[in-house]
Amino acid sequence: MSFSIDDCHYMARAISLAKRGRYTTAPNPNVGCVLVKDGQVIGEGYHRKAGEGHAEVNAAADAKARGFSLRGATCYVTLEPCSHVGRTPACADMLVEQGVAEVVVAMVDPNPQVAGRGIARLQQAGITVRSGLMEQAARELNPGFLSRVERKRPFIRLKLAGSIDAKTALANGESKWITSAYARSDVQRERALSHAILSTSATVIRDNASLNVRYAELGSLAELLPETELRQPIRIVVDRQQRLSKASKQLNIFKQPQNLWLASAQHQIGLPAAKQLQVRADDDLSALMWQLAEAEINDLWVEAGGKFAAALIEQNLVDQLICYQAGLLMGADAQSLVDVGGYTQMSQLNSWSCLETRRIGPDIKTIWIPQ
Amino acid sequence: MSFSIDDCHYMARAISLAKRGRYTTAPNPNVGCVLVKDGQVIGEGYHRKAGEGHAEVNAAADAKARGFSLRGATCYVTLEPCSHVGRTPACADMLVEQGVAEVVVAMVDPNPQVAGRGIARLQQAGITVRSGLMEQAARELNPGFLSRVERKRPFIRLKLAGSIDAKTALANGESKWITSAYARSDVQRERALSHAILSTSATVIRDNASLNVRYAELGSLAELLPETELRQPIRIVVDRQQRLSKASKQLNIFKQPQNLWLASAQHQIGLPAAKQLQVRADDDLSALMWQLAEAEINDLWVEAGGKFAAALIEQNLVDQLICYQAGLLMGADAQSLVDVGGYTQMSQLNSWSCLETRRIGPDIKTIWIPQ
Repeated sequence: MSFSIDDCHYMARAISLAKRGRYTTAPNPNVGCVLVKDGQVIGEGYHRKAGEGHAEVNAAADAKARGFSLRGATCYVTLEPCSHVGRTPACADMLVEQGVAEVVVAMVDPNPQVAGRGIARLQQAGITVRSGLMEQAARELNPGFLSRVERKRPFIRLKLAGSIDAKTALANGESKWITSAYARSDVQRERALSHAILSTSATVIRDNASLNVRYAELGSLAELLPETELRQPIRIVVDRQQRLSKASKQLNIFKQPQNLWLASAQHQIGLPAAKQLQVRADDDLSALMWQLAEAEINDLWVEAGGKFAAALIEQNLVDQLICYQAGLLMGADAQSLVDVGGYTQMSQLNSWSCLETRRIGPDIKTIWIPQ
Repeated sequence: MSFSIDDCHYMARAISLAKRGRYTTAPNPNVGCVLVKDGQVIGEGYHRKAGEGHAEVNAAADAKARGFSLRGATCYVTLEPCSHVGRTPACADMLVEQGVAEVVVAMVDPNPQVAGRGIARLQQAGITVRSGLMEQAARELNPGFLSRVERKRPFIRLKLAGSIDAKTALANGESKWITSAYARSDVQRERALSHAILSTSATVIRDNASLNVRYAELGSLAELLPETELRQPIRIVVDRQQRLSKASKQLNIFKQPQNLWLASAQHQIGLPAAKQLQVRADDDLSALMWQLAEAEINDLWVEAGGKFAAALIEQNLVDQLICYQAGLLMGADAQSLVDVGGYTQMSQLNSWSCLETRRIGPDIKTIWIPQ
């Protein structure tokens, strides 16, 4: 397959359009589309939200509004056009009907409902299709969607926050204001990016946590994301030992039961929640992650204690460790960030690579990925 | 005092020249000089090494070599010209003799042998002197020299290297290859930058450490610094309990006794070392640091175990924490990076701010400064 510099230029634009949907498209993927005729961009679009127009449909509408016909145009799209009639008509059919001459696709849609059928449909209609342009960049638009479809589990990001010596609280439990307001605001932005947040009943009860996005703390993101556009993530609380049943129903977590899911070894009678999930009584969390994929959760942001973090890590269920580090030394007797241990050889350790590190106010944020 | 854009331009150039001496000038400060006549640079120089020409002398020689006289020129220099005859004649006298019309100085030399006398000497001879241009940037050229002169102790940088969970070795002591070759090469570059390296006998004996700079591991720095220019730092080993006397004299540390200093509570008879320093039998390290300043040590790079690190930190003797972090989780039962502890309130903790953080290969390096 051969591509020109112009092809790259238009696809890069389509990728950049796709990113505009990243706070709202889940469970759908982020997709961007650029329509070009006679070396001129005649329409642009991206997918914003499930149930609304796909990127191709929005780009076609943009072209129409600008007074252009799609006849003879080239369509650049970051994901293979869909072939199935879902909440919206199939995009491949629309492109055929409008008389598009050529389609350039960054990646084939791994969704089994599409998986090459969109491209086949276009080719059957005599449209030239070239695919694979900037495929890696297109994949990076949708780690969660791709993980769910290809691996049958969400893309899992585990947040850890501690001191220089990797502690979360003093020996006596005191732990107020470890990280700065800058780092806490960044956590709110990460929550806003996430399709779902997962925590444990122990953490929720201890902090009386809401696990929602506090719009007022989004900082500069608020300029890009009006409050009416904010998607509150689905909140999933793992409660293996039914502690929530014994706790007060006045907990903040129960205030918006419409996006609260509870995961327990047994059905939790009488608790206000939108969904019940099953966790095994032992520590195995992979079945829970499979259920979350079945429930169309793309990206999972985990905030929990050192024990749960250790279980996720030891079961190889962490795709990114997001470490916030504050400039404190809390002491060897303070509480550990992650409760792994018992190793006797270096070869037993999981190994991670730094993806990026940066300063956030006086603190740092480092993203580690499995090596 | 008023300065023009051109003044800033020439002083910035002088600061950039000064940096060229940073691997070699100690115990002298880094100084750069630019000579300007009729809007043209006629000479440039920097101080390279104690005993060799000062920046002003080198710039004057450069002007002469280019066929220019200094008569009527403006001299931009990052540090007040010296007024005392030391290893070289006084620069203020030289500038007067050569007929320089004006001198622009970034900062007054706090060295009590100068301390304004250089400027006074120039003014007495009718030369216009303006001072304070880019003073902060000029100070940052010489943290070690300024610390020694102003605070009577070296500028102290403590290296810490550990895992994501801030451990240095497994519970059983195993600790091979925690950080990557990239991070270890960076440590060699930091050693090359340092006037002296300090460690403890416990660390030296355990690792049979040489504490010198391994030229082959300097990476890209080798392109800037020929091996013949490399200054091996002075190595200072703290040996409060005379462990070195009991250890083998075959230890690597004794191979080059000419730059080895030993700091002990008593005189260490029969050990090959260039200098003996006194440490108090208790933990107080400030007297040792005062002795190092008296011995003209500017910058001190400390590599030691968690106990010594804790003592330095608790005595507020650390100017920068240099943390190398490798992508490993070694476990809550593993050995701690710093042996502080016993805190019961967050208000008891020392607080640090991130100065910078960056990726080094798969690891990260973060510089923390006291808040």
